[in-house]
Amino acid sequence: MENFVYSVPTKIYFGKGQLDRVGMIAAEYGKKALLVYGGGSIKRNGIYDRVKELLEEEGVLLEELSGVEPNPRIETVRKGAAICKEKGIDVVLAVGGGSTIDCAKVVAAGACYDGDAWDLVLNSRKIKKALPVVTVLTLAATGSEMDPTAVISNLETNDKLGTKNEHMRPVASILDPTYTETVNAWHTGAGTADIMSHILESYFSNAEGYMQDRMAEGLLKTCIEFGVRALKDPKDYEARANLMWASSWAINDFLKLGKPVVWSVHPMEHELSAYYDITHGAGLAILTPHWMRHVLSDRTVEKFKTYAVQVWGISAELPAYEAAELGIEKTAEYFKALGMPATLKEVGIGEEKLALMAEKAAGRLAGAYVELSKEEVEQIFKDAL
Amino acid sequence: MENFVYSVPTKIYFGKGQLDRVGMIAAEYGKKALLVYGGGSIKRNGIYDRVKELLEEEGVLLEELSGVEPNPRIETVRKGAAICKEKGIDVVLAVGGGSTIDCAKVVAAGACYDGDAWDLVLNSRKIKKALPVVTVLTLAATGSEMDPTAVISNLETNDKLGTKNEHMRPVASILDPTYTETVNAWHTGAGTADIMSHILESYFSNAEGYMQDRMAEGLLKTCIEFGVRALKDPKDYEARANLMWASSWAINDFLKLGKPVVWSVHPMEHELSAYYDITHGAGLAILTPHWMRHVLSDRTVEKFKTYAVQVWGISAELPAYEAAELGIEKTAEYFKALGMPATLKEVGIGEEKLALMAEKAAGRLAGAYVELSKEEVEQIFKDAL
Repeated sequence: MENFVYSVPTKIYFGKGQLDRVGMIAAEYGKKALLVYGGGSIKRNGIYDRVKELLEEEGVLLEELSGVEPNPRIETVRKGAAICKEKGIDVVLAVGGGSTIDCAKVVAAGACYDGDAWDLVLNSRKIKKALPVVTVLTLAATGSEMDPTAVISNLETNDKLGTKNEHMRPVASILDPTYTETVNAWHTGAGTADIMSHILESYFSNAEGYMQDRMAEGLLKTCIEFGVRALKDPKDYEARANLMWASSWAINDFLKLGKPVVWSVHPMEHELSAYYDITHGAGLAILTPHWMRHVLSDRTVEKFKTYAVQVWGISAELPAYEAAELGIEKTAEYFKALGMPATLKEVGIGEEKLALMAEKAAGRLAGAYVELSKEEVEQIFKDAL
Repeated sequence: MENFVYSVPTKIYFGKGQLDRVGMIAAEYGKKALLVYGGGSIKRNGIYDRVKELLEEEGVLLEELSGVEPNPRIETVRKGAAICKEKGIDVVLAVGGGSTIDCAKVVAAGACYDGDAWDLVLNSRKIKKALPVVTVLTLAATGSEMDPTAVISNLETNDKLGTKNEHMRPVASILDPTYTETVNAWHTGAGTADIMSHILESYFSNAEGYMQDRMAEGLLKTCIEFGVRALKDPKDYEARANLMWASSWAINDFLKLGKPVVWSVHPMEHELSAYYDITHGAGLAILTPHWMRHVLSDRTVEKFKTYAVQVWGISAELPAYEAAELGIEKTAEYFKALGMPATLKEVGIGEEKLALMAEKAAGRLAGAYVELSKEEVEQIFKDAL
């Protein structure tokens, strides 16, 4: 286990009815809040009205940034940062899924930065301060509610980049699983695939971390148990609750501290959604099994066998390659059971830009579990066509 | 999963050489520190001198409270609280294992309380404030380095009681596994048994918490893998590191939030060590298998089977009782492999006070996984003789 500093101070209010505390929580951080949200579903399900009412009760004034995109764009971040500066916002309140929260984080950092907010995406070290971010989570997927990371898209440059800074980690997050009961099957499946991918990215690393790996297996089993259960019965509270809590722990640093890792599948998928604006979790579900098959080798086979045995219950008696391959097949089958596509064609991606996207992705794989050349990434893309 | 609020802000500095930061960390909280430690082993291994040097470099003045007992006594707490008040201490720095840290916590609370510190043990609600507590951990066992709990003994009244308050949760803890390489076999074994018991106390509860249980299994596997490895080779860094990090997570709230539980074996063991001053982990190792056998029933057998299959690798094909009993036997065997005693006689406990201790323990089992009458607790004690 390598040295690390663990600090995850985000306070989590978990369970039914926790939204009632939002006014009190926001008021801890100031008198003026910027409410950040997406396409308006929070207006249909009543959360919007309730949040306004609760903030009013506590005397917190409200500005709004609405229309945050599924892959949040830098233009929207700029708009939010400008409102913060102009109106003297004290606290940024994100209500939504990972996209909304990611946007809110960079808005909060941009509010404390003199230049253009895109600078903070290109270079996270420029973030020296941020307004406090409070979140109300409505989709279990990205884990943004408890982590210091945001992914922002720039359609002008076809960039979709992550930026990470402790100042952006939410100070408090409200996780009420009942809000995810109305999430449709597609986004429930994609969200679960995203959570599983976060765990797998940490799990397959070259650093030793026994405890971290056992915890990762526990979280994977949780996703596997409840992802399909949530599809079967969208109002299954235990399923929604376990997926929501797993989403936070998949990526809040706990799994990877002590065993540093460079992610593999996310950088590849980010190219797909930067160029084609596809659903992130769907892209991960398509690519993951192909990545696994590609990197399976004498060096990695024992780890893949452990994965197969511990996570999928494959018999430990089997030869390593056989067990490993069964584990990979189980992974692919499970993503299909989540309603995810299995090929790039299904999401409208052809051969045209594969080489270009492969080159960009390969540039971010130095130090990954298996380093891949642009040719290898392109091969994985082709396998996934 | 039930509603909960998760807030574990303790900052952890984990790994070799992290002690170098102690001066800087203490200085964040003030100019006067109270150094709390036990029997002087930190003087022999050089930590004491190094801490003094590092604090001096940062201009932090030092008072001392030494001689904290293995089961820390209220007299020592009172002494520490008095020093804090008299000298205007800003931060309490505990260097040692769980006993030292527990003592430091109540000293820190007592420093901010006008009455007698024992009040704060009897009624944790009286703790309205505490000095910040920083810890340097030298023994992986109690998890006190990341939790809000302290257990204090009062030999006058034969009480050994826990008190819990968020104000006492350490603000920062330094976890350098190399400091535990000199821990002898007895305390390594007892520490591992203590960690495992903390996990088991959360695992066997009547509330549903699928994710929590999978995480608990991961931590148990970690203890099982590395407890005997640390005995075999005390300088096995991976073993010491995994045990240390597992000790924190066994009890820092993560496992039990969402699935509230009243502990079973700890209240029974606390009577043993209150009356006989035995090593806490040894008492837990003796009692746990007997408690398991006693509470195994048609209601609990499926959970014990899951435990046997997931943690001990017992075949899921076996009938429930058979698998459950094998899991319990594995548990008993493992505690023996840790060098722990298997009977009360081995630690000098006879029949004399069993009824008295059983009565006190049974009074704390309302709401436990299986509620036990004083006769049942006495029977478990007798089975363990």
